[in-house]
Amino acid sequence: MEYKLYFDYENKKAQKEAYERVLKEYESQEIGYYHLPEHSKKFKNLKFKNFEEVVIIGIGGSSLGTKSIYEMIKNKYPIKKMIFLENPDPIDLETKFSQIKNPLFFVISKSGKTIETISIFKKVIKHFNLQKGAKNLKIITDPSSPLEKFAIEWDLEVFNIPKNVGGRFSVLSAVGMVPLRATGIDITKILQGAKEFRDRFFEKKEEHLLKKAAFYARNYKIYPVNVMFAYSTILNAFKEWYVQLFGESLGKNGKEIMPVGHIGSIDQHSFLQLLMEGMGHKTITFLKIQDFENPLKIPNINLPFLEETNFVNGATFEKLINKEEEATKEALIAKEYPVDEVILEKLTLYNIGELIMYYEILTSAIGSLLDINTYNQPGVEIGKVILKNKF
Amino acid sequence: MEYKLYFDYENKKAQKEAYERVLKEYESQEIGYYHLPEHSKKFKNLKFKNFEEVVIIGIGGSSLGTKSIYEMIKNKYPIKKMIFLENPDPIDLETKFSQIKNPLFFVISKSGKTIETISIFKKVIKHFNLQKGAKNLKIITDPSSPLEKFAIEWDLEVFNIPKNVGGRFSVLSAVGMVPLRATGIDITKILQGAKEFRDRFFEKKEEHLLKKAAFYARNYKIYPVNVMFAYSTILNAFKEWYVQLFGESLGKNGKEIMPVGHIGSIDQHSFLQLLMEGMGHKTITFLKIQDFENPLKIPNINLPFLEETNFVNGATFEKLINKEEEATKEALIAKEYPVDEVILEKLTLYNIGELIMYYEILTSAIGSLLDINTYNQPGVEIGKVILKNKF
Repeated sequence: MEYKLYFDYENKKAQKEAYERVLKEYESQEIGYYHLPEHSKKFKNLKFKNFEEVVIIGIGGSSLGTKSIYEMIKNKYPIKKMIFLENPDPIDLETKFSQIKNPLFFVISKSGKTIETISIFKKVIKHFNLQKGAKNLKIITDPSSPLEKFAIEWDLEVFNIPKNVGGRFSVLSAVGMVPLRATGIDITKILQGAKEFRDRFFEKKEEHLLKKAAFYARNYKIYPVNVMFAYSTILNAFKEWYVQLFGESLGKNGKEIMPVGHIGSIDQHSFLQLLMEGMGHKTITFLKIQDFENPLKIPNINLPFLEETNFVNGATFEKLINKEEEATKEALIAKEYPVDEVILEKLTLYNIGELIMYYEILTSAIGSLLDINTYNQPGVEIGKVILKNKF
Repeated sequence: MEYKLYFDYENKKAQKEAYERVLKEYESQEIGYYHLPEHSKKFKNLKFKNFEEVVIIGIGGSSLGTKSIYEMIKNKYPIKKMIFLENPDPIDLETKFSQIKNPLFFVISKSGKTIETISIFKKVIKHFNLQKGAKNLKIITDPSSPLEKFAIEWDLEVFNIPKNVGGRFSVLSAVGMVPLRATGIDITKILQGAKEFRDRFFEKKEEHLLKKAAFYARNYKIYPVNVMFAYSTILNAFKEWYVQLFGESLGKNGKEIMPVGHIGSIDQHSFLQLLMEGMGHKTITFLKIQDFENPLKIPNINLPFLEETNFVNGATFEKLINKEEEATKEALIAKEYPVDEVILEKLTLYNIGELIMYYEILTSAIGSLLDINTYNQPGVEIGKVILKNKF
């Protein structure tokens, strides 16, 4: 992968401080996600039998990361289909129920009592007539959570999430790795990519991350928004994962870096105008797949009266979308936005692992410099209390 | 539909000014979208034959509105499937090509030379072996555009977009109404909903819209962001349509109201923390479907150790998602955000038409008070020039 910063910035003191704080989290084992590449290796040889679809019952941190990876790779590898039961939206649930033929269910909740997840789980129990000891029903949760206790009572297989791994940082734990392993992919490659990026970071070989973190944290009042422009439709769930990661981690104590996710080139036709001529105050990150490994071409056809479009004739679609990315990037750099670019040479499992670890460490580094607790989410508790009182 | 403002605001001068400017646009016929409910009636009896899927080749304003409506209604009405070829992403295109069996194609471009659209069109011509005079190939474009001239040369049926209707305001023109009519729905109900809202607005019966517009425009420096929280997965494309409508219309001359779209209850698990404890400076709009017309219930099951979740037992999922909306709304009102709520009693074609017209007039009203040209998009031109020089 390649990381390019198109803005000039150095703050050695802040970069050093961020590095040391992140290092402390890592070495003290206080924060668990750094260690998942080793921890999750044990899932590499899991085998599940007699099913057609992997069905995830989970929301937020229990589904977004898995969905990101699945959407990026599903067209590339011959893997089982995944279906995500996330939202307690009756129309969405009914549509998805009708697609489930021969499922392997994973009920995923860190706390083990997420109301949406358990409600959907109850409906699934009834609809699919699940019983104690069901072989096609697996549980992923924290050790000793109510959901684990239930699983023991029901004689179900349980995979644990380490207590010191937060939901939005959990994709490389059992949360993502076990269901993705069930689809048939080689999760060791994802873990390897994550591990090697982490190691290079702690060997001080990824200074760009610290520069970017320092810039974002020291200038959050001038640039309270980070826009991700991801150039491929298959990065759609990834941008949502990034929105959760930044949003829940970095919006606290009256401070924030608000994540906004967009898909290129589609959103050049929607959001670009506002970037070009609005109020500014945003950093912009381009996420790009250099090599789609796909030869699809724009045919060399000359259509009468449409000759003006012939300049792309014979080019691959990959070239078109990537040149659009470059053109938009250059237009925004010319407007003096702090722009950076994250480039996946190819869409490999290794690169996906690296991308995830990059974003997680970036979030930790920014949070440490904002002097906030990156890992909690006290703001969402009050809504849960209000909800309970409405029934 | 119901519209509730949970903030106290009145600015009679600004409200009057917005009303008069919008009225002038409407009466002078300078801006065309207000008149589409009458204009598009002529499409109501269109019949298309011998096809299974409606395939849209278009991007931005040529697809988002149609997709919004389609996603909202596809589970409710027995209509033909729609497939959207939008992004020049080779992986996405190949996946969608493989789903096309017996298509009716609509190539949609207002300017008639959108590079993504024409490039994909060329690939479609080759892949599906389309010829001059093809009966399953229709063109939707501005009068006298290069694409219309091509269509005449190729002997294809053409539907025109009125010149004074901008792309992002065009869903009620041929752009949306012709392909949606082709799926089999009764577009007159959509047009009726839009017309009646417009008429009530000009009869001064929708003052809430002007209050909201005045508040947004007069406070854009304090609240430069509007977050839409739409409570149903089927509103996903609608929130993208809204992002284009606000983003391209209201980001100009160093001013902006940045649209951010989220889906409830999923994004309560991602973005809510930042709203609760971040920097504020956002208005928040809740979009809610009161009656999903779906009886799906959370079964009355008592799971050992999960008794804490029993408070929702026996409730419909509709009740759960709507109570979540209420709880989140109340939590954000308590944080003194300027919150408002748009409620569709049911998901009917009539209400969808009203919702679209509401958002379009709201955009016009805000733009008029920001003293910007709501209808152009000069900021996106430079990227197109840069792109051309890259080939």
